[in-house]
Amino acid sequence: MSETGRPSEFELIARWFAPMAAPGGLSLEDDAAFLAPPPGRDLVLTKDMLVAGVHFFPDDPPDAIARKALRVNLSDLAAKGAEPAGFLLGLALPPDWTAGWLERFARGLADDASRYACPILGGDTVGARGSLTLSITALGTVPSGRMIRRGNASPGDRLFVTGSIGDAAVGLQVQLGRYDRIEPALADDHRAHLVSRYRLPEPRLSLVPALGRHARAAMDVSDGFVGDLTKMLALAGVGADVDLAAVPLSVPVRAVVKGAPAARDVAFTGGDDYELLVAVGPADAEAFRTEAYAAGVPATEVGLVTGKGAPLRFRDGDRDRSFGLGSFVHF
Amino acid sequence: MSETGRPSEFELIARWFAPMAAPGGLSLEDDAAFLAPPPGRDLVLTKDMLVAGVHFFPDDPPDAIARKALRVNLSDLAAKGAEPAGFLLGLALPPDWTAGWLERFARGLADDASRYACPILGGDTVGARGSLTLSITALGTVPSGRMIRRGNASPGDRLFVTGSIGDAAVGLQVQLGRYDRIEPALADDHRAHLVSRYRLPEPRLSLVPALGRHARAAMDVSDGFVGDLTKMLALAGVGADVDLAAVPLSVPVRAVVKGAPAARDVAFTGGDDYELLVAVGPADAEAFRTEAYAAGVPATEVGLVTGKGAPLRFRDGDRDRSFGLGSFVHF
Repeated sequence: MSETGRPSEFELIARWFAPMAAPGGLSLEDDAAFLAPPPGRDLVLTKDMLVAGVHFFPDDPPDAIARKALRVNLSDLAAKGAEPAGFLLGLALPPDWTAGWLERFARGLADDASRYACPILGGDTVGARGSLTLSITALGTVPSGRMIRRGNASPGDRLFVTGSIGDAAVGLQVQLGRYDRIEPALADDHRAHLVSRYRLPEPRLSLVPALGRHARAAMDVSDGFVGDLTKMLALAGVGADVDLAAVPLSVPVRAVVKGAPAARDVAFTGGDDYELLVAVGPADAEAFRTEAYAAGVPATEVGLVTGKGAPLRFRDGDRDRSFGLGSFVHF
Repeated sequence: MSETGRPSEFELIARWFAPMAAPGGLSLEDDAAFLAPPPGRDLVLTKDMLVAGVHFFPDDPPDAIARKALRVNLSDLAAKGAEPAGFLLGLALPPDWTAGWLERFARGLADDASRYACPILGGDTVGARGSLTLSITALGTVPSGRMIRRGNASPGDRLFVTGSIGDAAVGLQVQLGRYDRIEPALADDHRAHLVSRYRLPEPRLSLVPALGRHARAAMDVSDGFVGDLTKMLALAGVGADVDLAAVPLSVPVRAVVKGAPAARDVAFTGGDDYELLVAVGPADAEAFRTEAYAAGVPATEVGLVTGKGAPLRFRDGDRDRSFGLGSFVHF
C-alpha cells in the first residue's frame, strides 16, 4: 500500500484481478497468458475500447462501467457465433482513482466474468493522462471455419433483429434529462429500464447455438440500427427492403415516443443497443425464430435482402423513409 | 473525408490499417478476427498499454510511437519463447490528431508488422478524452505446453541478460537534457544511439529458438534490471548472487557514466530496456550462450540462482550493493 492509501500495481492484481482468473489457469503474475483452443475450434478475437465521457459517464457506477466494457466485447463474440474463452483487460486509470472505486469495478467485472464463463487471462494497468480508458480484448471459439461473418448476406435472406431496438439510445437521452417534461410523464420503472439498458447491455450469447445453425451473416448493433444495417448490407453488396414498423420497440421506448414522437428516430438511429442483426436463409427463418425464442431472446423479422447492387429501402408501414448518416460517428 | 479534412473511422481503416492485415486473412471490416493456431501449438497472449506523456513523448515521431507500442508486446512474446502470430490495435486518438500524423503512425506500424511477421488482426479506434492512448494485444504461438514461464528459476541456474542494459533509461535522461553538460561531452552518435534505444526497443525474437531449447524461466526487462530480476526470483522463491560488474553496459552508456557516475545506477534500475532475463540450467548455459551469439544477440552471464528462500544479493566486483525500490512504479 502506497502513502496515498492506494494499492500498488502488484497488490491491485493480486487482490482484485487474480481471483478472476480461470481455476488452474495462469497466474496473472506472468506478463503473458496462454490458451489452447479445443481441437476443432478456431479462435475469435475482438477488441473494444471505452473512454469515460464518450462511452459511459465518468460517474456511472464503477461495476456498471466494468460490466459494459466486457459486455460490448461479448456482444461482438455472440455476433460471430462464438462461445467466450477469456479476456485481457487494459486499464488506464486517471490520477484520482481510489481503492474503493477500483474494488467496485473489479467486483462487477468478476461477476460478469463468472456469469458469462469468460475468465480474465491477463492485461495491463497504467496511469492515464486524461479520462479513464478501458481496452478489453475478448477471445472466443467457434467450430473450425464456422465464424459467422458480417458481410455474407444473400438475396432472399430474411433480416432479423433480436430483442428490442433503441432502449439504450433513448435511455441515454433519459439520463441526460431530455424527456423530463414530456406528457404523459415517463413512469419511474420505464425510466429505470431505459437507463439500465444504456448502462448494461445484454450480450446475446444465449443465441450462439441458434446462430451457428442458421445465421448466414450477423453483426451486433452498436452504432445504431439504421447505420449498422447499412454497413452490413454494403459489405455484401446487396440491397434490402426493411419495414421500420416491424422493428421491435420496447414498452418504455413506446412510452417515450408517445410524449416525444422524435424519439422514434432516436431509437432507429441511436447506438448502444448491442442487439444482433442476423441474415437467415429463407429455409432457416422459421427454425431460427423458434430456437431464438426457446433461448429466451425474441428474434423479429424486419426485412428481406433483395438483389446484388439493389438499394437499401426503408419504409414505415406504407410510407417511404430515408435517413441521413444514421449512425454514431466516432470522431 | 469529414469537414475537418480528416478521414472517418472507416476511411481510416480502409486506407491505413487494412493493408497491414494478413494476406488472405480477414478484412478489417468485420468486428472480430479469427485465428486457428497451428496444430500442436498453444496461443500466447500479451497486452501492453502505452500513454503519451507516460510511456513516450507526445511529440515523438509518430512512426516510432507505433513501433514501440508493437515492440514492447513482441518483447513479451519473445520472453515466453513465442513466435508472433498477429496483433489487435486499440487506438484512442486525442482531439487534435491529424491525417498526416496518423499516416506516419500507420506506416511505422505496417513496417514493423511486416518486419516481425505479425499482421494486424483487428482493433478499435475511438476518440480519447486526454492523451493519445494505445493498447495492443499481441498473439504468438509456442509448441504445446512449452510457454516459458517467468517464475520457474531453480537453484543452480545461470542468470543471463541479453544485449546491453540501461541504454533506454539513460537515453530517456539524455532526451530530457540531463547530461547536456557532462565532461567529457557526449558524442552525437552516442546521444543518438541512446535516444533511439529509448524510442525503439528491439524485441529479441531472434532468440526464440534458443530460448525454447534452453530457457528454464525468462522475462523481459521493462521496469528496470534490478527490479525485474527481483520480481522474477521472488516468483520462484529463490535467491541469487548477481555481479553488477558483469552486467553488460554499452559503449554509449559507459561514455555517459564517465561524465556522470550516477548514470550507472540509472542503467541498472531504469526501465524500457526490453532485453531478456533468462535462467538457464547449468548444463545448458554454454549452448544457450553460443546459440544466442549465433542468432545475433549476445547473452551475458550475470549471476547464479542460489537456494530456495535464499536472499538476492548484488555485488559490484568486490563490494556488496543494495537497492531501494529498483523498479519503475506505474502509479
